[in-house]
Amino acid sequence: MSRTDQIKIAAIANGYGSHTSAWRHPGAAHNASQSLQAVLHLARVAEAAKLDAIFLPDSNQLSARDPETLSRTARYNVKFEPFTILSAMAAVTSRIGLVATASTTYSNPYTMARLLGSLDILSGGRAGWNVVTSYVPAEAANFGLKDLPPHAERYARAHEFLDVVRGLFDSFEDDALVLDKAEGLFYDPAKVHELNHEGAHFQVRGPLNQQRPPQGYPVLFQAGGSEQGRELAASNADAVYSGEPTFERARALYADIKGRMAKYGRTPEQLKMMPGLYVCVAETDELARQKADYLNSLAHPKLIKAMVSSALAGLDLSGYDVDDTIPSFEDPEVVHISQYHTFAEMAREGMTIRQMHDRLANGGAAHFAVVGSPQTVADFMEEAFQTRCADGFSLSPAGAPDGLESFCQLVVPELQRRGLFRTEYEGTTLRDSFGLARPDHPVVRAARGTASGS
Amino acid sequence: MSRTDQIKIAAIANGYGSHTSAWRHPGAAHNASQSLQAVLHLARVAEAAKLDAIFLPDSNQLSARDPETLSRTARYNVKFEPFTILSAMAAVTSRIGLVATASTTYSNPYTMARLLGSLDILSGGRAGWNVVTSYVPAEAANFGLKDLPPHAERYARAHEFLDVVRGLFDSFEDDALVLDKAEGLFYDPAKVHELNHEGAHFQVRGPLNQQRPPQGYPVLFQAGGSEQGRELAASNADAVYSGEPTFERARALYADIKGRMAKYGRTPEQLKMMPGLYVCVAETDELARQKADYLNSLAHPKLIKAMVSSALAGLDLSGYDVDDTIPSFEDPEVVHISQYHTFAEMAREGMTIRQMHDRLANGGAAHFAVVGSPQTVADFMEEAFQTRCADGFSLSPAGAPDGLESFCQLVVPELQRRGLFRTEYEGTTLRDSFGLARPDHPVVRAARGTASGS
Repeated sequence: MSRTDQIKIAAIANGYGSHTSAWRHPGAAHNASQSLQAVLHLARVAEAAKLDAIFLPDSNQLSARDPETLSRTARYNVKFEPFTILSAMAAVTSRIGLVATASTTYSNPYTMARLLGSLDILSGGRAGWNVVTSYVPAEAANFGLKDLPPHAERYARAHEFLDVVRGLFDSFEDDALVLDKAEGLFYDPAKVHELNHEGAHFQVRGPLNQQRPPQGYPVLFQAGGSEQGRELAASNADAVYSGEPTFERARALYADIKGRMAKYGRTPEQLKMMPGLYVCVAETDELARQKADYLNSLAHPKLIKAMVSSALAGLDLSGYDVDDTIPSFEDPEVVHISQYHTFAEMAREGMTIRQMHDRLANGGAAHFAVVGSPQTVADFMEEAFQTRCADGFSLSPAGAPDGLESFCQLVVPELQRRGLFRTEYEGTTLRDSFGLARPDHPVVRAARGTASGS
Repeated sequence: MSRTDQIKIAAIANGYGSHTSAWRHPGAAHNASQSLQAVLHLARVAEAAKLDAIFLPDSNQLSARDPETLSRTARYNVKFEPFTILSAMAAVTSRIGLVATASTTYSNPYTMARLLGSLDILSGGRAGWNVVTSYVPAEAANFGLKDLPPHAERYARAHEFLDVVRGLFDSFEDDALVLDKAEGLFYDPAKVHELNHEGAHFQVRGPLNQQRPPQGYPVLFQAGGSEQGRELAASNADAVYSGEPTFERARALYADIKGRMAKYGRTPEQLKMMPGLYVCVAETDELARQKADYLNSLAHPKLIKAMVSSALAGLDLSGYDVDDTIPSFEDPEVVHISQYHTFAEMAREGMTIRQMHDRLANGGAAHFAVVGSPQTVADFMEEAFQTRCADGFSLSPAGAPDGLESFCQLVVPELQRRGLFRTEYEGTTLRDSFGLARPDHPVVRAARGTASGS
């Protein structure tokens, strides 16, 4: 049976687009990943098309990749800090959601609650938080840590971090801020609460020096497909940003995470599965293919070899031409690259170095990737949606600004024609767009519990 | 001899203004301290008048004051996190500086460099940082600390923190970001540097994942008049936000801090002394007095007593009327209030509880405070400027939006008529407005040193 809900779309809008050589496109703005106007333009385009949200990936380092890659692509490179640039976007938009990636490993809950709460308040309830625990060792060295903390420890910290942040958001009950000029009462002290959290990782007294956010809690995205990541998503997240290259794998993850929710008292509708989707679209399949080919042609030979070598754990390609077939290789004993085995399997299909680069450059080979006409892209999205691979997508346009502009001009109307995407925003908050209820304050929840139990 | 430079003005724009009961004024916007539109309006007004900067005080707590004060005034209360709201201001302004207060005690240098650098980049070189070490114990409890770290330790950390942040800002040389589309070179790896800082408080590898900020280093404000605070200012700051109630004390601080600069190889012009200035202005002295009286009349009797009691270390005023003379009292053995002795001296002048409240409410009794006509206010500012109490002012308008609007409409033209204030921005950055040179990258400094030594 066809679904009655609609596709959700969060667009990654980092200035240059997703293709690793898109920054060389003549249409790419100068220094686009650090240009206010370039990024604000993308936010305005996305909002005009009624997309759900702008989504900003993030990382606290500039050294995880090899120097040749770093110096030749805008990806993995210089960037705005998410809360600042999203706040700037908030000032020039009014409906689109604004989702910041931020790590629980290198921040503290009081600061995070202030940043996230401020963004939610100043945007009128449009903030989202893509919570990550940071798996790249290079980040640890920027925060005084010798090594990346172990996975289990990072997730234990993340769970407690989330509890504290939500507790801080509940400092003020929803009607605590009286603002009664006549009576001279700014807030009702009986409705403002200390948190007094004493946990394994954090001790935080509170209260937070902010009203309760317009959304109660900003929308929580989770990214990370490990066992602990899945439990975090099922127990806490409103949305999941996953990376799955095939319908089959995406469908399995979808079912797995939704299946874990019942034990936390949650229904499947309370969480939106939004796998990454790389899109290169043009008026026809042929034109889209040409657009993709042109982007691929912009890759510098040194970048081509660096990206393939890096994906294959440092395989030495120095004696080869980019159009040579990838030489045979042995797997290293220890692998530090999360998708190494996917990449190694691909490399053994007999492709050339350039061919493998092109796969990596177009969506990273770990996400859905579609190159085609509006019909082709919409067909892909519809099938993924209807067969429950996805409730929506974290959209990676190939280039910028063209990638997002083309998606909005060509694909969105096609989705709307099919009834799969909104023609007007449902409300003013990101929760409204996602069809998610605003979480009640614990005091209200407790009162309801008492009332229904009596 | 009359000065040839001009007065600098950084306006505190926190929504409600500085008077502790200004939020009750009929003209105050609803929930102004958490209203994007109310705060953006102030930024636009300040920029139209060519003020140097918006300045945002900050604090990471909501419990340092007594409950009666907290629940009855917008001051010391809920607020936006500075980097988010200043980023929103940056999107709708183009020339005015944006100064965030942020603590070195509760943050880390990599995160701070990203927030501050992002604000500088997205605003085109308009960021400032009011560096504080946080002296309010209530903040420590929100960051897992049993007690506020000792003063000397906080300042040692602050010095190292500043070194690391500047080192991170120097990750990219000014011409490191090549952005050469034709050659496919995004940055020149030879001009991007790891920091590899190993200090007592921080270990940070770098590089920062941002270009060097447009200002080199964003403008650094310092606040805090202790011996260590003064050394930090003389060695590092571009501007000082001080609180001095008299010309005599301000002049002494001015001479003291400027006098300490030579030993750090700095000239007095490289630092702007900008004491706090509370202003209530109207067309005539009489109208300004009425405006101030009206604001004072808005103070709730419970707030009046709470503020006076709190300033006098908890003096019990429960049996008294607000128009009673303050009863005699003994000084407590241990005092935790930084300005207790100023307040106690004031209280012993024989004033009523209400009279003392009115002093506290109008500029906190620890800053310059002027109530009067544009001529009166300009006279005050001119004398302070010409007699070297100040190079400029950190302006606290009494109420909002009227306080800032009135200052810009009435006082600014008077200062301009006297040649004491700009009629056009000197450039596009806050450094341009302050007449401060852009700091060279260390590589450039080193090369110049070699060249001049050869």
